[in-house]
Amino acid sequence: MQGSMEYRMLTYGRLAEDFEAHVKSSYPEILITKATSKSEIKSILPDVNAIAGFNFLTDEDVSGIKWIHAFGAGVDSYLKLESLDPNTTITRTTGDLGKQMGEFCLTYILAEIRSIFTTYENQKIATWKQIPARSLADLNVLILGTGSIGQGIAQQLNGLVNKIIGLNRSGTSAAQFHDTYNWDSISQIQDIHVVISALPSTTETSSILDTAFFKLFNAVIFINVGRGDAVDENVLIEAINSGHVNNAILDVFPEEPLPKESNLWTNDRVLISPHQSGLTTIDDVTSCFKLAFNAMKRDERNNLFVDQEKGY
Amino acid sequence: MQGSMEYRMLTYGRLAEDFEAHVKSSYPEILITKATSKSEIKSILPDVNAIAGFNFLTDEDVSGIKWIHAFGAGVDSYLKLESLDPNTTITRTTGDLGKQMGEFCLTYILAEIRSIFTTYENQKIATWKQIPARSLADLNVLILGTGSIGQGIAQQLNGLVNKIIGLNRSGTSAAQFHDTYNWDSISQIQDIHVVISALPSTTETSSILDTAFFKLFNAVIFINVGRGDAVDENVLIEAINSGHVNNAILDVFPEEPLPKESNLWTNDRVLISPHQSGLTTIDDVTSCFKLAFNAMKRDERNNLFVDQEKGY
Repeated sequence: MQGSMEYRMLTYGRLAEDFEAHVKSSYPEILITKATSKSEIKSILPDVNAIAGFNFLTDEDVSGIKWIHAFGAGVDSYLKLESLDPNTTITRTTGDLGKQMGEFCLTYILAEIRSIFTTYENQKIATWKQIPARSLADLNVLILGTGSIGQGIAQQLNGLVNKIIGLNRSGTSAAQFHDTYNWDSISQIQDIHVVISALPSTTETSSILDTAFFKLFNAVIFINVGRGDAVDENVLIEAINSGHVNNAILDVFPEEPLPKESNLWTNDRVLISPHQSGLTTIDDVTSCFKLAFNAMKRDERNNLFVDQEKGY
Repeated sequence: MQGSMEYRMLTYGRLAEDFEAHVKSSYPEILITKATSKSEIKSILPDVNAIAGFNFLTDEDVSGIKWIHAFGAGVDSYLKLESLDPNTTITRTTGDLGKQMGEFCLTYILAEIRSIFTTYENQKIATWKQIPARSLADLNVLILGTGSIGQGIAQQLNGLVNKIIGLNRSGTSAAQFHDTYNWDSISQIQDIHVVISALPSTTETSSILDTAFFKLFNAVIFINVGRGDAVDENVLIEAINSGHVNNAILDVFPEEPLPKESNLWTNDRVLISPHQSGLTTIDDVTSCFKLAFNAMKRDERNNLFVDQEKGY
């Protein structure tokens, strides 16, 4: 039973200092060490059986790791590690990320339907030009992924937009959604004005938003707050050029930071946001850590526990 | 009794063509004529007893006019006419302007707390730089004016922000506001993050937002969707320079279009919006016209009827 295990934990990256202090004061039973470089990670790793942090940026051997607590909602950087033990417990931080991402989506939907970047550019040339706005209340929104993040986004948009449709693997209904579909019935979804991807990165979701997917829509606002590998850059640019997507707001990319040479930077239908739609705070990390650790001690599971096979 | 009066009506400006067609088909008892220039207004005016349109842009004699139906919510351009008969009935168009203006305020509040213009500029130089966002749910909003426009704005923000405070002449409570104050008790209002002016233009509100007013606040987002003469340009710039106002979003100005030589165009803390927070549609005009005309026929009054002394 893992709950009775003694944990020697390595933490690293953003929030590591605050997290280390928190664990030292609140969980004396956990022996925590902070690494400040890749070489420190390498030297400390053989002596620990647990790690905690954002993306794991080295390919060191993690076969001896029994518990990983991710500081973010996405755990793909861990799941990609070849040495990962299938029995390793992975827990994650969701916090109010869904709410934050919902505010992010609301911000950019409003920015688009009110053309505020055009008005902003007009100001630079002292040009007075009225642009009619579309109303938020007329929009139908499709959210890809109906888990905690997708539901958080839907909750923020509920009551403001006309209709919120969810898409998930099973088509089972989910809180906050007026209706849900599965991927096989996607062609039945009609009159969508905004498509939001909250998909995690798994083997199934890689490049899932393909040309055929975008052809289902007409001049939609496309927002990606999930993971960048759900859509290939060239597929998206083609969808923009052919009018299926009117504007894209991208917060995530296959490679981050987005490489300088990417054509997305200069596409005037694309807004680049540097993975900031939901920024995990130390409070998010510590409260999810507490929920995860307490569940482990009781040998229970909750929605913070990742299914390695599903990938989220 | 005005309801039994036979109206000969002049219409002009934006929406005049649609309005003329609507009146001809729906109100055969009203004889309507459309003017397409100031000289046509001048030549037709002596033969009519009613006018309908946006701002009245000439200073012709209107002493014979018994009814004015304004296409917008602001009627100051009519009230300023020296020849206006104090007994002239003035009705106006509110439609869903409050709702639209609420969406406008929501758009720019979110744009500010998520620094989207900074991210937009960073994209131009291919720069990946995360900026933490403030949360909408933490903000306290003060709305100046609690009439139909102020209430419409409050309704859009309700449930999204922390608290909505209203300010009006009497301090009497109003729908959608958590609390209301009058101008004498304004110094009691604390912890405000956003100030929205929905004030009409009257002799009382002219330059009412003075240096002493802005000193009550610290680094607020200031939004003006009321009338531009509520605040002098130099007073606002001083409030920005002294930190009482962090950013200003201005949709209205003392002179519109805003003159090219205004220092506001180039102030990097000021966003200029060309009086587009709420754009009246022909449906807004005709539905308010119907409500106003029906009330007049029954010798009744409703909230579309302007009190000439109050100025709104």
